[in-house]
Amino acid sequence: MAAAMIGRFQPFHLGHLELVRQVLNENDEIVILIGSSQINYTLKNPFTAGERVWMIRDTLIESKIDMSKVYLINATDDENNAKWFSNIRSLSPPFNVLYTGNNFIRTLLKKESVLIKDPKLFKESLLKGSMIRKLILENNVKWEELVSKSVRTIFREIDAVERIRNIYQTWMDSPFSEPKN
Amino acid sequence: MAAAMIGRFQPFHLGHLELVRQVLNENDEIVILIGSSQINYTLKNPFTAGERVWMIRDTLIESKIDMSKVYLINATDDENNAKWFSNIRSLSPPFNVLYTGNNFIRTLLKKESVLIKDPKLFKESLLKGSMIRKLILENNVKWEELVSKSVRTIFREIDAVERIRNIYQTWMDSPFSEPKN
Amino acid sequence: MAAAMIGRFQPFHLGHLELVRQVLNENDEIVILIGSSQINYTLKNPFTAGERVWMIRDTLIESKIDMSKVYLINATDDENNAKWFSNIRSLSPPFNVLYTGNNFIRTLLKKESVLIKDPKLFKESLLKGSMIRKLILENNVKWEELVSKSVRTIFREIDAVERIRNIYQTWMDSPFSEPKN
Amino acid sequence: MAAAMIGRFQPFHLGHLELVRQVLNENDEIVILIGSSQINYTLKNPFTAGERVWMIRDTLIESKIDMSKVYLINATDDENNAKWFSNIRSLSPPFNVLYTGNNFIRTLLKKESVLIKDPKLFKESLLKGSMIRKLILENNVKWEELVSKSVRTIFREIDAVERIRNIYQTWMDSPFSEPKN
Amino acid sequence: MAAAMIGRFQPFHLGHLELVRQVLNENDEIVILIGSSQINYTLKNPFTAGERVWMIRDTLIESKIDMSKVYLINATDDENNAKWFSNIRSLSPPFNVLYTGNNFIRTLLKKESVLIKDPKLFKESLLKGSMIRKLILENNVKWEELVSKSVRTIFREIDAVERIRNIYQTWMDSPFSEPKN
Amino acid sequence: MAAAMIGRFQPFHLGHLELVRQVLNENDEIVILIGSSQINYTLKNPFTAGERVWMIRDTLIESKIDMSKVYLINATDDENNAKWFSNIRSLSPPFNVLYTGNNFIRTLLKKESVLIKDPKLFKESLLKGSMIRKLILENNVKWEELVSKSVRTIFREIDAVERIRNIYQTWMDSPFSEPKN
Repeated sequence: MAAAMIGRFQPFHLGHLELVRQVLNENDEIVILIGSSQINYTLKNPFTAGERVWMIRDTLIESKIDMSKVYLINATDDENNAKWFSNIRSLSPPFNVLYTGNNFIRTLLKKESVLIKDPKLFKESLLKGSMIRKLILENNVKWEELVSKSVRTIFREIDAVERIRNIYQTWMDSPFSEPKN
Repeated sequence: MAAAMIGRFQPFHLGHLELVRQVLNENDEIVILIGSSQINYTLKNPFTAGERVWMIRDTLIESKIDMSKVYLINATDDENNAKWFSNIRSLSPPFNVLYTGNNFIRTLLKKESVLIKDPKLFKESLLKGSMIRKLILENNVKWEELVSKSVRTIFREIDAVERIRNIYQTWMDSPFSEPKN
Repeated sequence: MAAAMIGRFQPFHLGHLELVRQVLNENDEIVILIGSSQINYTLKNPFTAGERVWMIRDTLIESKIDMSKVYLINATDDENNAKWFSNIRSLSPPFNVLYTGNNFIRTLLKKESVLIKDPKLFKESLLKGSMIRKLILENNVKWEELVSKSVRTIFREIDAVERIRNIYQTWMDSPFSEPKN
Repeated sequence: MAAAMIGRFQPFHLGHLELVRQVLNENDEIVILIGSSQINYTLKNPFTAGERVWMIRDTLIESKIDMSKVYLINATDDENNAKWFSNIRSLSPPFNVLYTGNNFIRTLLKKESVLIKDPKLFKESLLKGSMIRKLILENNVKWEELVSKSVRTIFREIDAVERIRNIYQTWMDSPFSEPKN
Repeated sequence: MAAAMIGRFQPFHLGHLELVRQVLNENDEIVILIGSSQINYTLKNPFTAGERVWMIRDTLIESKIDMSKVYLINATDDENNAKWFSNIRSLSPPFNVLYTGNNFIRTLLKKESVLIKDPKLFKESLLKGSMIRKLILENNVKWEELVSKSVRTIFREIDAVERIRNIYQTWMDSPFSEPKN
Repeated sequence: MAAAMIGRFQPFHLGHLELVRQVLNENDEIVILIGSSQINYTLKNPFTAGERVWMIRDTLIESKIDMSKVYLINATDDENNAKWFSNIRSLSPPFNVLYTGNNFIRTLLKKESVLIKDPKLFKESLLKGSMIRKLILENNVKWEELVSKSVRTIFREIDAVERIRNIYQTWMDSPFSEPKN
């Protein structure tokens, strides 16, 4: 059966990749749910859903993951969190296990018919997308070691570093404002 | 005629109850408008609209309020505040008085055909939902004295304290992020 | 425990009232879900959610139903029907039975944790809101016998007959168009 | 004071122009509300809001209307018609008169603080956008006499005739479908 | 480079499969855009996006398509068709060719930086999802020959035939109504 | 040809006016895009789109700008910034230049077919709406010198100063909350 993992993947990093491996070791197939897929070009969500799909898929192929076992699913969300899971159910092929260490998601899914499993703990799992975005803003190249070669390539192709800085700079200039406005 | 009061009721507390009594003393019927009804499982809005309806109604019955005089109305909102009141008008039976001490709502309704009345001031009216959520996060059991027995019962049934903490904890872990993402 | 019934109640009629009685005979409480609550002033949905709440509540009080056993809940919908039920769950207090004779809803709720029960069959249950709107358009006063005295009173107060005809007339004038445009 | 007129202007035609003249004769300024502004590339709404603004403005300038007396306002709508007018109020500068012969709009605005006035009747006022779109589909060039020179020019620039036919043809091919899908 | 094809895939059939083969013969990768992904349980769109992903993927694997060359992308739409393509761009990895025989889409994309190519004509390309849904409603088992073995298997697992009939029946019962209401 | 400028105009000030003059000096026509047009009565966006249209137009007329060269366009936005520009394209008449000094917008429009030009630098261009709202909150009347006479007149007519303070005060009272709730 299929098992799922959920993230915003801003960007997809080596901790995410480790979890993909764990899930595929323990299950037949994996559904990778790309959360907040409708948001992009913001501080927390600099990349479009399409760019995130691209980074994930190139990383999995680079890592010799068998793509016939992988579903990538864009998952929108809104402020009615109580219907979040049934929205995801409508967008995704069936799965009966969800890997997450996030207590909020556990709380949300308390009554849903899905088994929650914990990701194993390893160094990379402490990684967070926010950490990578912060390193980039601080001009600290260490972020490059935290993502795959494919992600670095796509970053160059889409000028990701410049984009993250421009979003941040506009936000700094107008502290009362969301970026665009 | 009917008069209305508006709140998010996160959760419904004894200050709200006192205002219900005041409104029913001064009017034939009350419309209780449950604001931001589309939002839930967030720091400010931990409870679903349905849970809020449930807490309000059980508290009113516990308090011997005559339910044939009470309308409970879920009221959505969005960022176009200028159409907020006409949205509420479309969702609610007619009322010609609105009780509110909130200056923003007074500003918003300046041109609307509704009479704004002030809630009387009593100790409980200083209560705020945010205060109760804060006490819970600080493990201070005083919150229990600020809500009805019915609310405490429902809190246990839905693990409300754990939910509020899990939402908060996830938020603390990722300061740049909204809870879920 | 509570049981639910669902309808658009355009308008609430005597068949609906009979079902309310049946549900309350067989259960402690009833949740009346007012579907498509965000739609109004259209051919199929001439009344606002607030007007529908008003008609239902006045009819129940006229019929000596104990209002402390009744929840009236506005329920929005959208074109992602697969998340319809979880949206309703988020807007309503808990219920574990749903009365419906509609096969589509049965199909939709196949995997949901709710018991579906059939409404008993009696003459009034053949009633449909569409039938009443049709009689009104044909100037046939028989519609008055199919709704409660309270509904007739509210119809006069809001000029419901004129509204239904105006919506229809505008629609007839522009066969390629939705009413307003 | 300003007076308003409302239409979808698919496309703006000589009947619309006559009404603009009437409104400006009787009032200081005119607010032209472009309805269903969020819809485009459909049978009923082939043109974007921007294209409609463009056609209206070029026609008014061609007709020597003083543009310092004219507001063009994009007005979205949704299926909650009861809040339609307050949405328009939020998008438009103030006006206290609305010219419309549409009974549905009269019904909708019954309780709003706006004076409804009838357009004068003249031959062109029998014109409808649907008539023009129908002539185009029937290859009947008479439509050209029903719109301004500016509209004809813009039609050529955006290949409007081909667009209307392509939308229609796709719709004919899939009778159960909305155009795109 | 990648090329895209777009459809609603209600359901995915052998004509779609042939186009996938053509696209992969002529390009490195294929992006399969699943249109109207937010709609389900309607006459035209009986299946959820997730079910459609499932049917497509199982069919491609059954057909020995190399999954490392395939992207499946859920693509929402709304009534502002003029922004449809840029929404898809935001949800999808980059592609520079789109295969479509649909004139409406050609019209819509006139100014977009994408090359439109025609699908080759073969018998299966005359297939339409609407045809398959019609055969099912007429109890004509010929539909089974028009889809893959995988689709037939999934149809049994989700009771697809019963679902299509229930949706249709409810629609027939209330000709003025959308299915659910 | 037409050139565009974009802003939220909360409120329209003398820096904006200078840019209008520059754009009209260098181009035939100007499209003034009013961003976040769906938001109002918030800290960052106290004014409705309609009020903003009103202030801009009265200021331009006061400043002897030829209104036959000016388009005012309400432009909604949402959190999918990647489709922001195509939304604007659908709402606006065509333009081929956009004046903006905002790096975020430059990033966003990298691949769009529009020429980005820098506003000239002059003292007024350092003005920001946020600065004016801050002066008002601090009771500093200097804000009056930063806007046109028309804007001051409209401010009095709509009690703008009181509105800004009431929104702020409600926000200060409930630091965890958005204004209304």
